[in-house]
Amino acid sequence: MRAGGVSGGGTAIPPFVYQAVKFRAGRLSLIDQTRLPGRVKWLRIRSAADGVQAIKRLAVRGAPNIGVAAAFSLAVEARRLDDRELVARMTDAAGKLISARPTAVNLAWAVRRVLRHIATGRNPAQVRRLVEEEAVRIEREEVERSLAIARAGLELVRDDSVVMTICNTGSLAGPGFGTALGIVLNASEQCRRLRVIACETRPLLQGARLTMLELKRAGVPARLIVDSAAATVMPTCDLVLAGADRVAANGDTANKVGTLMLAVLAREFGKPFYVAAPSSTFDHKMKTGKKMPVEERDPGEVTSFGSCRVAPEGAIAINPAFDVTPARFVTGFVTEKGIVRPPFRRSIARLPRERRA
Amino acid sequence: MRAGGVSGGGTAIPPFVYQAVKFRAGRLSLIDQTRLPGRVKWLRIRSAADGVQAIKRLAVRGAPNIGVAAAFSLAVEARRLDDRELVARMTDAAGKLISARPTAVNLAWAVRRVLRHIATGRNPAQVRRLVEEEAVRIEREEVERSLAIARAGLELVRDDSVVMTICNTGSLAGPGFGTALGIVLNASEQCRRLRVIACETRPLLQGARLTMLELKRAGVPARLIVDSAAATVMPTCDLVLAGADRVAANGDTANKVGTLMLAVLAREFGKPFYVAAPSSTFDHKMKTGKKMPVEERDPGEVTSFGSCRVAPEGAIAINPAFDVTPARFVTGFVTEKGIVRPPFRRSIARLPRERRA
Repeated sequence: MRAGGVSGGGTAIPPFVYQAVKFRAGRLSLIDQTRLPGRVKWLRIRSAADGVQAIKRLAVRGAPNIGVAAAFSLAVEARRLDDRELVARMTDAAGKLISARPTAVNLAWAVRRVLRHIATGRNPAQVRRLVEEEAVRIEREEVERSLAIARAGLELVRDDSVVMTICNTGSLAGPGFGTALGIVLNASEQCRRLRVIACETRPLLQGARLTMLELKRAGVPARLIVDSAAATVMPTCDLVLAGADRVAANGDTANKVGTLMLAVLAREFGKPFYVAAPSSTFDHKMKTGKKMPVEERDPGEVTSFGSCRVAPEGAIAINPAFDVTPARFVTGFVTEKGIVRPPFRRSIARLPRERRA
Repeated sequence: MRAGGVSGGGTAIPPFVYQAVKFRAGRLSLIDQTRLPGRVKWLRIRSAADGVQAIKRLAVRGAPNIGVAAAFSLAVEARRLDDRELVARMTDAAGKLISARPTAVNLAWAVRRVLRHIATGRNPAQVRRLVEEEAVRIEREEVERSLAIARAGLELVRDDSVVMTICNTGSLAGPGFGTALGIVLNASEQCRRLRVIACETRPLLQGARLTMLELKRAGVPARLIVDSAAATVMPTCDLVLAGADRVAANGDTANKVGTLMLAVLAREFGKPFYVAAPSSTFDHKMKTGKKMPVEERDPGEVTSFGSCRVAPEGAIAINPAFDVTPARFVTGFVTEKGIVRPPFRRSIARLPRERRA
């Protein structure tokens, strides 16, 4: 029997956990997640423009990881730029990184944290150093938050629990264990017997490709379903765990499209629905989810599958990448500060707020 | 402007409607729907065994159409068999056809209607003639039921309605207009301006491949979504229309997996949820949906996409082809006898019952 993972105070990250974003000696590499599960291919990021591309095409993904990847992309960019152009080009690169994907607030949050050192640095060399230090700090903090979330979530998963989840919210989505799936990975490492129902997560199948891969590596029994079978399987589950891309001050939650469906079904079938997210995913300036930006992605993700066209020529598709789950469907948020319960407006306000630019 | 379709008493089937099952001069051919939308390939059915294969691999599909195809397969089989083996082999073939797919009750119903002529025929020649006549009668009756459903459903779709649907329930699924999508096709032909939201319907994408094709041919504006985006789009819809594979005496409805999800979402968002089905889809002997047989199909339909594996090697999938929607989620049934409303136990009991073997 294993007995690793994190509980009281320990912080052992087991070897099956991925580190999808690596920054070593000024060099940034990402696992190209579009190639998984077939192949682990490392992608070198040599500039902020490379980072923007990797984020846009989902080579790196998951709210915490795109924040971390963007921060390191700026560190790489700072090393690359001449002294003269440093400030102007960094500001430009930061804007492009922020607009690479609109929904996950972690991206803008991380970029702004790094960006403020452009103003505070006294000279180009110091700017480069401060930018890099901030990126490293962001990653380290997200690892700590992930471990704290994994610990806090332990109380939700009893032995023999069946957990339904959507998209990928494990170590491929964020530093450390990730978020929602991180709770499962850690609980399993703590010898809890769990079973997972993974929604495949159309159109890009992060559930089928990535979550099933992480669970296989971790030795957690898992079964894959098409998203629309969630209603059939829900009665056999004990708990739904989802991640988040942005949580408003009232608890409305933007996450991968399909999350709202799961939340409505969970309530219909009387199952608890928890969202796991670090404080960096909470957007205190956004009062509700009504105006949350929801990224519309290429309709070709729906009308085609890989290189294979499935819909007739000329077919029009709508492809919202996220949906917004009203707070009333959320049982609680698992954060690094513990489980946040209703009334959310008050409990969310008590979460730590990052200094923002 | 067109003004065809069926309303009061007319019965004009417009040219864009498919006839997916053709029986002419003793020869049975089916459109191989696994090849659509790419190619219209006709498949010749030379025996009941061919019919079983075509039904199992979904070359022919849709509750009414598999009943009709099975009936014609028996007619083809009767022509093929020697006098001596006719009765024994026909009974055997009927059993194999019935067990080709367990959920749609139309299949067993049609086969049993044909089968009783094996006992009533006085000699092999008469058996062959009676079997063929019964199969032709079943098809003709299903066409009439389809047109009557299309007429009855007209009152549900006002001008500028947005209709959400799942799977394919048009002319590729049943004779005539089909069922749920038939209402849309006919209403559009009657010059109602409608728009359709088509759920792609994983795993086999009948919505993306077949419904989008039928709507394109009919000139009805349609947008395709991944199934899990139904929650996002539901607030913009006026009505959900689904087909059925079997309806119990209390109104519990088996239909393509995903239908229960739509029904729960429709209620959550205050939208009417109607099921369109001919009386041949109602199983009066089954009191509720609790014991409805739900076909489990090959997990490979979920772990792979065409020839492309999407989940890691060894990944386990659950693949229920149908789900059962409790009657309390159904606003009404559109049948050839008009719209059947709650209390369903009483209103369904009044529907015509076929003589069964």
